Amino acid sequence: MITGKTQVIAHIGFPTHSFKAPMIYNPYFEHAGIDVVVVPMGCEAANFPAFLKAVFGLTNIAGALITMPHKVSVVDVLDEVSRTVKVAGSCNAVRRAADGRLLGDMFDGEGFVRGLVRKGCSVRGANAIVVGSGGVGSAIAASLAAAGAAKLAVYDARAESAAGLAERLQRNYPGTSVTDGTNDPAGYDIVVNATPMGMSDSDPLPMDVTRISSSAFVGEVVMKREMTPFLEVAKARGCRYQVGTDMLFEQIPAYLEFFGLPTTSPDELRKLARINY
Amino acid sequence: MITGKTQVIAHIGFPTHSFKAPMIYNPYFEHAGIDVVVVPMGCEAANFPAFLKAVFGLTNIAGALITMPHKVSVVDVLDEVSRTVKVAGSCNAVRRAADGRLLGDMFDGEGFVRGLVRKGCSVRGANAIVVGSGGVGSAIAASLAAAGAAKLAVYDARAESAAGLAERLQRNYPGTSVTDGTNDPAGYDIVVNATPMGMSDSDPLPMDVTRISSSAFVGEVVMKREMTPFLEVAKARGCRYQVGTDMLFEQIPAYLEFFGLPTTSPDELRKLARINY
Repeated sequence: MITGKTQVIAHIGFPTHSFKAPMIYNPYFEHAGIDVVVVPMGCEAANFPAFLKAVFGLTNIAGALITMPHKVSVVDVLDEVSRTVKVAGSCNAVRRAADGRLLGDMFDGEGFVRGLVRKGCSVRGANAIVVGSGGVGSAIAASLAAAGAAKLAVYDARAESAAGLAERLQRNYPGTSVTDGTNDPAGYDIVVNATPMGMSDSDPLPMDVTRISSSAFVGEVVMKREMTPFLEVAKARGCRYQVGTDMLFEQIPAYLEFFGLPTTSPDELRKLARINY
Repeated sequence: MITGKTQVIAHIGFPTHSFKAPMIYNPYFEHAGIDVVVVPMGCEAANFPAFLKAVFGLTNIAGALITMPHKVSVVDVLDEVSRTVKVAGSCNAVRRAADGRLLGDMFDGEGFVRGLVRKGCSVRGANAIVVGSGGVGSAIAASLAAAGAAKLAVYDARAESAAGLAERLQRNYPGTSVTDGTNDPAGYDIVVNATPMGMSDSDPLPMDVTRISSSAFVGEVVMKREMTPFLEVAKARGCRYQVGTDMLFEQIPAYLEFFGLPTTSPDELRKLARINY
């Protein structure tokens, strides 16, 4: 129950109607006796910088979840951002340091990689390809590099987007060999669809799936359905795979740690969540 | 359950620890299926004007409850205020009009008067005395005048506070005869303690209770205990009376109407509230 002692996590974005976080975090907070509540705050671009500053002036703010359309613009409002944010160019979590500075991090990619590791996929030393260099694809690529991928290929239909990401990756992770320009998955140990293709029934597949090795681990970001056509094909080819919502639930513990709150397993979070996919 | 479709009522003040509104409104909203949540937002003075503007820029803001220390300063931030606010000099409710202007009103006094009327006390044509000219006393005096009190005496230990209130009352309600300067309750139909006296066991009584007529209706604003020493004496003298929390629960329907939300009775609100006095 919300009282005067409750701390607030502001879930900031617009539109708010499809927000999922309140139905994932709040049941867990209630279950675990953590006096914090995630509150949707519909904020349009013009109001965002002023609102972010003002909301972090509140005495009972525990942090903020940042979503569309602010994931990129928020970076310029913060005092310090993680290396993942610098590479991805976007940020989905903000907290206030003890000295008042606003710190930003990005956990989409972290959730994706945590899920892979939990499923026994070895990321360190692996060769990975990420198709789609938007916000989530960039974050996944950054986290794969941070986790020690040996070789990383990025691709986007907008070639300059992939090229920019490749440059940032290479500069921040010199130990990883980064290339861009192809979406051919042949020969990669980890193959990721980070495009929105699969949201709609009429979408084409995001790459030539016949070229995916049966020993590859295949990951998906589309959450609209558990098994997308892309994952169905990968499964049929004998690949191990990770569904889109795993990325979502795997990243919540990372957020909780970032906010300094007691954490739990993705499985318990999924069990408690009042949400259906 | 909070979802992305939930509207927010910001409960703004500092400190937040003693806030009661979340435990009154939220159980009612849940019970009535109203998708709105009252959220405590701890805001200190320096951050208040910017925060109020920014929070009313949110797309899912349903209104704001304003409490200490902002009840007075908020008035200057608003575009339009009710006559009650002008007289009381303070405001505890803000909503955004369709055209974006911020409108303020004050319901402490309205709640007090609704409670009296519900208990069969006739305010129209009555002679009333309000001891204490702070925020709540000023609001009660304004609402008694608005409800048609014939004669109204106001008093405060700080004489200039009572004089200022008397001037604003007289100017805004020329049909009521307003005086200030005495806390002698003799001869008044309605006698109100609007001072904090009664919060602490060692407090003196707020006026000479032996001078209260046994036919008077006596009201109290202190909520710390149901029966304050002041009310105990009034009861012993045979007076009808109203306890402090009645003012609280009687004003909630007025707030709900102001915010354009479905309303209910103070009795149901009290029954649903998850709070003990």
